[in-house]
Amino acid sequence: MTGRTRVGSPRLGRRAGDSGTRDAILAAARSRFAEHGYDRATIRSIAADAGVDPALVHHFYGSKERLFAAAMRLPVVPGDVVATALAPGGRDPGTGLGEHMVRTFVGIWDHADLRAPFFGLLRSALTSAQAAEMLSEFVSQTILAPIAAATGAADAEYRAAMVASQVVGLALTRYVLALGPVAAASSDDLSATIGPTLDRYLTAPDLRDRGGSSGIITENPPQS
Amino acid sequence: MTGRTRVGSPRLGRRAGDSGTRDAILAAARSRFAEHGYDRATIRSIAADAGVDPALVHHFYGSKERLFAAAMRLPVVPGDVVATALAPGGRDPGTGLGEHMVRTFVGIWDHADLRAPFFGLLRSALTSAQAAEMLSEFVSQTILAPIAAATGAADAEYRAAMVASQVVGLALTRYVLALGPVAAASSDDLSATIGPTLDRYLTAPDLRDRGGSSGIITENPPQS
Repeated sequence: MTGRTRVGSPRLGRRAGDSGTRDAILAAARSRFAEHGYDRATIRSIAADAGVDPALVHHFYGSKERLFAAAMRLPVVPGDVVATALAPGGRDPGTGLGEHMVRTFVGIWDHADLRAPFFGLLRSALTSAQAAEMLSEFVSQTILAPIAAATGAADAEYRAAMVASQVVGLALTRYVLALGPVAAASSDDLSATIGPTLDRYLTAPDLRDRGGSSGIITENPPQS
Repeated sequence: MTGRTRVGSPRLGRRAGDSGTRDAILAAARSRFAEHGYDRATIRSIAADAGVDPALVHHFYGSKERLFAAAMRLPVVPGDVVATALAPGGRDPGTGLGEHMVRTFVGIWDHADLRAPFFGLLRSALTSAQAAEMLSEFVSQTILAPIAAATGAADAEYRAAMVASQVVGLALTRYVLALGPVAAASSDDLSATIGPTLDRYLTAPDLRDRGGSSGIITENPPQS
């Protein structure tokens, strides 16, 4: 926006300049995301704050999601993990989607350095309503939206959010609270136990009907 | 332990003295719990730190759980909520245990002042491994143990912990992240959706077997 560009061209490979420019972009991104949230922060505004051309930000980071991941020092891009977890070709025959998702997430989170930045964001969310809103918007756009799109159901957002409720709780009880039996469980056990929950949230036809969709026949409540 | 007692007798109803003694006990409790965890902190040691007789701590607070709840300024005692949630006589005919548990928890958490101290503990747990251990021990002793006892299953601790993984995740996604569809959902929707998950975690015979217990017939994986 300002036309004040600090580097000539990133293609020249001026590494010292690149590094300074990247730092300026990431600092601007952190401020913008924190102040305006994920949805309202734009690459254009971040580029303006950093004094560079928006095309340079696109060139360095490719997308707002990847810029956010870099700014928040996430070692993996959550959307990439979700894409892996949802990939039909990525799972063994006979493995349900829910089971495959649990296995994928646990496989990453079991590495302390891969999960630490995620819990940093969660800690900020517990401290500041603004940080919570930023994280909520990021999770909705980059994690829930692709899961919702994969279900194709009318209430896809509700279903994806229910998946998130179980997956986030697994992360907290296994790694933060480290509740004995959850922390000690194998990936096989967790995916066998929790996978069917996610499958039900994603595909059961009567997810909000009482007495339905559990696979267990229950008596109807009296109409009172 | 020290014999250094700052009040004569609580039965005399000396309110100013009581209040000062209670403050001293709660301050000693907060230090002990933070430093030694929930399991290893004893009423005896807390009384010694506060310079009062252990009997006085019992007289004021009744149990370690209630002392912890008072020290952490929890407006409800979690064990009381769990007892309510598990009470067979407390639910309408036709209401499953899982549904009733979700309804009970959401009914309390929907009051911001009732849930705030809980999230304070969670924030501490995300900040300090020591605080996480204290919270984990408290949750295991006062929330998971009664749930596990209610199942009567061989792997009751695993089942109770799985219930916790879903319930904690519901709290985080509804109230902290406030993910749109979880935050907007009614108690009816949430209990209908999540109740059967908790029922399955508590009662399904084959919780850790692949392809079992989901209530959905799945093809057997090829033996490779």
